[in-house]
Amino acid sequence: MVKNAMTADFLRSAYGGESMAHMRYLIWGEIARKEGFPKIGTLFEAIGYAEYVHANNHFNVLKEQKGDYTVPAGGVFGIGSTVENLQGGIDGELHEVEQMYPVYLQTAEFQGEKGAKRSFHYALEAEKIHAKMFKEAQDSAKSGKDYDFEAVYICPVCGYTVLDESPDVCPVCGAKKEIFKEFK
Amino acid sequence: MVKNAMTADFLRSAYGGESMAHMRYLIWGEIARKEGFPKIGTLFEAIGYAEYVHANNHFNVLKEQKGDYTVPAGGVFGIGSTVENLQGGIDGELHEVEQMYPVYLQTAEFQGEKGAKRSFHYALEAEKIHAKMFKEAQDSAKSGKDYDFEAVYICPVCGYTVLDESPDVCPVCGAKKEIFKEFK
Ligand SMILES: [Fe+2]
Ligand SMILES: [Fe+2]
Ligand SMILES: [Fe+2]
Ligand SMILES: [Fe+2]
Ligand SMILES: [Fe+2]
Ligand SMILES: [Fe+2]
Repeated sequence: MVKNAMTADFLRSAYGGESMAHMRYLIWGEIARKEGFPKIGTLFEAIGYAEYVHANNHFNVLKEQKGDYTVPAGGVFGIGSTVENLQGGIDGELHEVEQMYPVYLQTAEFQGEKGAKRSFHYALEAEKIHAKMFKEAQDSAKSGKDYDFEAVYICPVCGYTVLDESPDVCPVCGAKKEIFKEFK
Repeated sequence: MVKNAMTADFLRSAYGGESMAHMRYLIWGEIARKEGFPKIGTLFEAIGYAEYVHANNHFNVLKEQKGDYTVPAGGVFGIGSTVENLQGGIDGELHEVEQMYPVYLQTAEFQGEKGAKRSFHYALEAEKIHAKMFKEAQDSAKSGKDYDFEAVYICPVCGYTVLDESPDVCPVCGAKKEIFKEFK
């Protein structure tokens, strides 16, 4: 339940941004596979799932705010090489980490909106990791190598993202190891 | 390749709208399953995939228009009963069928944008079917019954949607029977 119009606007914008990010990561993941980077393909797919989790969380907080809205939301466009697409991923994630989610989170706190605060906090923590992983994947791709990992694990509650082994308890939301979703 | 700014704006808006529709149909599909309407859950999932196809098509036409944009896009919000969620589906699809895609298509034609014209045409044809199926599903759900079908088939090229058997050739884009994606 959201009481304040500004927080509701920000939740809708964040939902729009996460929905578009989910979509372009699936598209860029296919390109990575075609270019001979199957692991980077899996990374895009897994992180796309984390954005799905964020979009779901925002949508759920807005559960009672029924109706049609025109939503302004940030998106990165273009299809290029995997190195270029990863740059699109880095740019989008860094915008969320440095500008968008800190402001949205601060507003939710200021307006006393607990559900939105949790949803924005979950996303912000995951995006930090996404920016870092896309950068590492890009460094590999630049030297013609695929990104190196066994599997990507995503927390289905908050989108927390980790390579190779899921933690006993999610460090962001406390979810248990068993419910993490594996991508390999 | 898109040459005109207005067509490019409309493609980005349509991409934003399709990305959000894809996302909310997955969410509403889960609700339908929990409410004891597994077929309506499958219908939401399948139509969500058709919206994924539309978003992909629009994004691909915009391939060369690289960069960050703030995109205004229409979205339906709220989580209620399956009957209510289907009304959200009907409202969104009818807006696309009666207002959004006819105007976007007309503009693409006026500006001589062939790629956009095809992408908008594909979406418009599928949305007509989506509106009709959601209405039928809602009529069933209102009398406490699940929607009745064996499987949903989606054309992965244009999003054409049909129940029970895929056609030999997609009536909208000409794709072959074998590539249709089945949901059951
Ligand atoms: Fe996210
Ligand atoms: Fe992210
Ligand atoms: Fe978590
Ligand atoms: Fe669509
Ligand atoms: Fe549709
Ligand atoms: Fe088709």
